[in-house]
Amino acid sequence: MIKIKNSEILSVGTELLLGDIVNTDAAYVARGLAALGINLYHQGVVGDNPERLEEALTLALGRSDLVILTGGLGPTYDDLTKETAARLMGRSMYLHEESLERMRARFANRGLTMTENNKKQALMPEGAVVFKNDYGTAPGLAIEDEEKGKIIIMLPGPPRELEPMFDEVVVPYLKKFSERVLLSKTVNIFGMGESKVETVLKDIMLNSKNPTLAPYAKDGEVLLRVTASGENEPECSAMCDEMIAKIRETEVGDYIYGIDAGSLEAALVNELLKQGKTIAAAESCTGGYVAKRITNVSGSSSVIDGSIVTYANRIKEKFVGVSHETLERHGAVSPDTALQMARGVRELFGADVGISTTGVAGPTGGTPEKPVGRVYVAVSCDNHEEVRELTLGERATREYIRFVSASHALDLARRAIVKN
Amino acid sequence: MIKIKNSEILSVGTELLLGDIVNTDAAYVARGLAALGINLYHQGVVGDNPERLEEALTLALGRSDLVILTGGLGPTYDDLTKETAARLMGRSMYLHEESLERMRARFANRGLTMTENNKKQALMPEGAVVFKNDYGTAPGLAIEDEEKGKIIIMLPGPPRELEPMFDEVVVPYLKKFSERVLLSKTVNIFGMGESKVETVLKDIMLNSKNPTLAPYAKDGEVLLRVTASGENEPECSAMCDEMIAKIRETEVGDYIYGIDAGSLEAALVNELLKQGKTIAAAESCTGGYVAKRITNVSGSSSVIDGSIVTYANRIKEKFVGVSHETLERHGAVSPDTALQMARGVRELFGADVGISTTGVAGPTGGTPEKPVGRVYVAVSCDNHEEVRELTLGERATREYIRFVSASHALDLARRAIVKN
Repeated sequence: MIKIKNSEILSVGTELLLGDIVNTDAAYVARGLAALGINLYHQGVVGDNPERLEEALTLALGRSDLVILTGGLGPTYDDLTKETAARLMGRSMYLHEESLERMRARFANRGLTMTENNKKQALMPEGAVVFKNDYGTAPGLAIEDEEKGKIIIMLPGPPRELEPMFDEVVVPYLKKFSERVLLSKTVNIFGMGESKVETVLKDIMLNSKNPTLAPYAKDGEVLLRVTASGENEPECSAMCDEMIAKIRETEVGDYIYGIDAGSLEAALVNELLKQGKTIAAAESCTGGYVAKRITNVSGSSSVIDGSIVTYANRIKEKFVGVSHETLERHGAVSPDTALQMARGVRELFGADVGISTTGVAGPTGGTPEKPVGRVYVAVSCDNHEEVRELTLGERATREYIRFVSASHALDLARRAIVKN
Repeated sequence: MIKIKNSEILSVGTELLLGDIVNTDAAYVARGLAALGINLYHQGVVGDNPERLEEALTLALGRSDLVILTGGLGPTYDDLTKETAARLMGRSMYLHEESLERMRARFANRGLTMTENNKKQALMPEGAVVFKNDYGTAPGLAIEDEEKGKIIIMLPGPPRELEPMFDEVVVPYLKKFSERVLLSKTVNIFGMGESKVETVLKDIMLNSKNPTLAPYAKDGEVLLRVTASGENEPECSAMCDEMIAKIRETEVGDYIYGIDAGSLEAALVNELLKQGKTIAAAESCTGGYVAKRITNVSGSSSVIDGSIVTYANRIKEKFVGVSHETLERHGAVSPDTALQMARGVRELFGADVGISTTGVAGPTGGTPEKPVGRVYVAVSCDNHEEVRELTLGERATREYIRFVSASHALDLARRAIVKN
């Protein structure tokens, strides 16, 4: 049995060297390896160049037991990861019929015929462990060399293929190589910054070796990864829960919206399902982002019948009953408008909960009294109405302002119904 | 004068190895180097570990003329980038008074007093070129070694400090070292797969050394990067245009929606602005994704007044006039429903162009005749109505199905108004 003491990630793709895409794959895999307790000391990127790839892979295999390659498994002539790795490990290639079949089926499924060059993706090194790809054409694979005690794992580059493959196939595969059980739970926090969370939890973090506590910021939220190492999963799970209970007792507790909740929208939809309630949004500056995120969640059709984007003032008046006076006196970007939008959309679609967003997403359109980043989000439901004023910063990007504004609307709605 | 033939990026930070942050710095610097025509063959990441950093830097200096280090310039004891680089280049450190003054002033501005450990950030290797930091405390720097013909550039890790410093100080600094101009244009393609594009353009790709042609898939689209190297920008630009004209003559031509267009939504919004037209969407399976993407584009408020998510059938009937009979006979996921939605929403908001989406985004809800991934998108405008049937695959993720469906709706709309 190969022992994995350390690992490294080597990403392959000229588009990475040109800066055309950001290497989110490396971060995703790195986080996964950390959760598995596997040491990662290097990350590298090389282009679609056989010599440099071979050189980099040779170096990596020299210092690491596990090398995870991402990208370069595509159908085109410059996708050379598999061939290069096979040559280095002294394996010849063969046609993996099952993969070819899956690919054919996938194309047929879409009424397309497979082009010849796709066959290349079904070629596998002798003795490789093949990871089926449910989200794309290129299978992933692992080559194990018992003698040298080395493993090379190869994963497709597109995140929507790599991420599920890593979680569903690679993690279980890697668990076989580590003796002790490692289990992580993620505490979802919204509304408190990372440095504040760290300050509050500093002592707990420093004084706990098992479970460990690792906070990181993501999409305007803070995720707190609690990782326990033990004999078995139930034991680890209990250790994590104990730690999470401790965290709930701190100032951070009020900002926790879930454990392994996935996202604010998932937490909201689940709460709505639990209470059998429906929601609708009237969106100005987020322009559909709130509805889009709610409907990200499979099963959301039970909690949302309709939603509206009221970008122009005439639409705000006509459809969600914002009064002309309010728009005249306070303007579209105001707490009054936000509240009327939330009330109005609730009535428009006959929903239990109405939420709204109105603000200046930028980069233009800011004024001294209403700068870029000034946003109002509101909620209206039985026995509760609330408006939240946001100041997200004039330097913030349009995407960030829209995303975080939507997050606040989702958070406001979840808190409102949990309170009720 | 040092000649920079090739370069590499080495990022320093344990948080990168843990996957807690994504390495956007590397992508940003890489894009900048590409624009300068400086070859980049490697990117690397190491933790805050002096031995491994020294090892990685030694390797980098052995194969590259220019090494750009990002991160590890902070005030804490584990920030060792500068010290390690100085040692390797045989430079002693001295206190750079000007940097110390800038830091003191910066702290004073914020009503803070500088802590002792910050002084560390003002220590510089003998003979270094110092890059002032207008966005943070740690200055950047360059060490030039005329003898070895090597340059090491060190930049602070936080993107909000690195990005402006790179653009404002590093780019002008580097221009002194490069002889040739390199210029790239990106051809935006939608509706044809990467392997198909590759097949059609293979000969052109293989036979052209300058400009070069590199295709890559991104978000269900194909980007073709055309890169020319020459004496000056106009010459390079003309070379790119000539190549693009060649591509337009192929089968691929019909699927090109823009050159450096950025995105389908940007191309659509620009076309609408050009024609002074407005658009509205009625979304079922995309649940707001179409509107969200249109409003991603700054200035979209001139082309979209409102948009609606019609998730439930009763909402489709009540607001966008889908007939009860149609829903009874053909169901919500049908070309008839899609077309009526597009017509209806156009009328509802008084828009020039109406688009719609209805389909099965999955993972559940599929049937033999309407499997997951079956989506209808429609457009309705003066003298043109069209429905497109999509089969995106039962294994595709919900996010992918929703994103690509939205892309098709945007594409359908753009083609419709360009045609008119």
